[in-house]
Amino acid sequence: MKTIRSIIAVLAITFASFTIARAADPLPSWNDGPAKQSIINFVTKVTTPGSPDFVPVPERIATFDNDGTLWCEQPVPVQLYFALDRVKALAPSHPEWKTKEPFASLLKGDLRGAMAGGDHALLELLMATHTGNTTEEFEKIVKDWIATAKHPKTGRLFTDMTYEPMLEVLAYLRANGFKNFIVSGGGIEFMRPWTEQVYGIPPEQVIGSSVKTKFEMRDGKAVLVRLPELNFNDDKADKPVGINQHIGRRPIAAFGNSRGDQEMCEYTQAGSGARFELLVLHDDAAREYAYGPALGLPDVKLGAFTQAVYDEAQKSGWTVVSMKNDWKQVFPPVKK
Amino acid sequence: MKTIRSIIAVLAITFASFTIARAADPLPSWNDGPAKQSIINFVTKVTTPGSPDFVPVPERIATFDNDGTLWCEQPVPVQLYFALDRVKALAPSHPEWKTKEPFASLLKGDLRGAMAGGDHALLELLMATHTGNTTEEFEKIVKDWIATAKHPKTGRLFTDMTYEPMLEVLAYLRANGFKNFIVSGGGIEFMRPWTEQVYGIPPEQVIGSSVKTKFEMRDGKAVLVRLPELNFNDDKADKPVGINQHIGRRPIAAFGNSRGDQEMCEYTQAGSGARFELLVLHDDAAREYAYGPALGLPDVKLGAFTQAVYDEAQKSGWTVVSMKNDWKQVFPPVKK
Repeated sequence: MKTIRSIIAVLAITFASFTIARAADPLPSWNDGPAKQSIINFVTKVTTPGSPDFVPVPERIATFDNDGTLWCEQPVPVQLYFALDRVKALAPSHPEWKTKEPFASLLKGDLRGAMAGGDHALLELLMATHTGNTTEEFEKIVKDWIATAKHPKTGRLFTDMTYEPMLEVLAYLRANGFKNFIVSGGGIEFMRPWTEQVYGIPPEQVIGSSVKTKFEMRDGKAVLVRLPELNFNDDKADKPVGINQHIGRRPIAAFGNSRGDQEMCEYTQAGSGARFELLVLHDDAAREYAYGPALGLPDVKLGAFTQAVYDEAQKSGWTVVSMKNDWKQVFPPVKK
Repeated sequence: MKTIRSIIAVLAITFASFTIARAADPLPSWNDGPAKQSIINFVTKVTTPGSPDFVPVPERIATFDNDGTLWCEQPVPVQLYFALDRVKALAPSHPEWKTKEPFASLLKGDLRGAMAGGDHALLELLMATHTGNTTEEFEKIVKDWIATAKHPKTGRLFTDMTYEPMLEVLAYLRANGFKNFIVSGGGIEFMRPWTEQVYGIPPEQVIGSSVKTKFEMRDGKAVLVRLPELNFNDDKADKPVGINQHIGRRPIAAFGNSRGDQEMCEYTQAGSGARFELLVLHDDAAREYAYGPALGLPDVKLGAFTQAVYDEAQKSGWTVVSMKNDWKQVFPPVKK
């Protein structure tokens, strides 16, 4: 009888937890309102058996931009801080960088100046600092860096500058049978070493920009060497291309925050059945940053939320999240 | 009490099934011997908690070649039959094909003749028959074709010309927490429409050769158009490149059957911890086909199991499966 009582106790606890989990608010960092409600409505209808909008588990694919959608991208995207530290580390072997842009600006600590050269300068910077090693060597460099790298304004680890409300969305979707993918203009190998720990997203669910790699035998060991040649630029109209290449089906939900995510949202929306698109508007200078230029917010150039994107979102029924009004809390609580 | 009895009954059945499942032979179509034992030994050691070779579930990545490893690739790879039927369907709009190779040979039913032009001719054929439509249009063409297309010798559906022993390996690995990926020289979009149903491998776990695609708005709907330009040739030294691009970590197990899979096996083996590589040798003319040219078997040119690959397998401790001796049964039983 003792065994039976134990079994019943275990079952009772299991069912009780289940009931509590179902009843609890899945998005506690979101203020009640249309944005939060739109997420819950969508998830409820695609997961309710018998609903006309029901979607089988294997087709529950959600894609998330990273910079500005899952973590803070201001004052400049995190990967640029990584590039800066790589430039510093590699500078002794590159005396010519002292007078050559964008390296010269970077070495003076002027990150925005380094970005002034546009895409070409940025690409040259990334090639010089992100290649020449094996994929495993690069992974270790990223892992070591991300473990201690901190945001210049808040002093918090970059991996703590993630958006708590979006972490909740990731967990909520995952608990409802979704497979979450990152679809970012950032480097695929810059993200993979930490996305599993930070977002619960494994390397094989990360899509990003990449350099070409080459198979080689080094000391009798098969390795892949990272070449200074762009393989894929995962931005704008190429985000759907990357999605198709990696996933092979249209997402049913897409989350972004800028012009770079427009085609991903359009591609998501154009599928049949229930669809969901969401853009985060950074209108919270007090708790994070305020930038657009939609709605007259300051224009930061890189990855901007333009007025045209805002207008399309309104017209197409995409959810626009006001960070200021819709989020109770922006970043995870500081660990004591 | 009735409830308690029901619960106990359910639990008893659950535990009983579990015990039976554990005790049953996971690879019933394999004859006992070193090949079968090597698979079971590997899976056991990487999944036994506390074992020095234990591998956490997220790192249990296995990669499988498709043609000749999971399904029959003789007398020519299945995708060539698909291309042939596409040539027939498109021929009325291409009168020039009557005298132009490789189309002319194909239209006369001479598939090996069509292959005689080598990679260049094959690429031209694939571009002409696999592109110009949207990804969703192409998916439908493949789905419709694969539903009825049959092997010329056996008259069975191509999807029934899969290897029963390898389907068991896929299921055995999956049941032990592995994520199985296809890594094939075949077209990624030619495989994705049916791999979930046939192999239990979803589209996002299929890696293959691909053409470039382009985002477009057609009638106000976002689509991807397939361009007649090769994007990636997933073969030989580029298989590890494709694996890294899609998965972002080294597989711990790799399964192939030819020269095209050599670097995938080398790349798999070069990681740390327990590793497993397996090559299927087609030495069974009676039940399937016999080809090498390793061990003096006939040379079929395409995707050959060369003597050099055989020698490396012996030297490196890769399992070589003799289809004739190691497999009790080659194809799934014919459905009545």
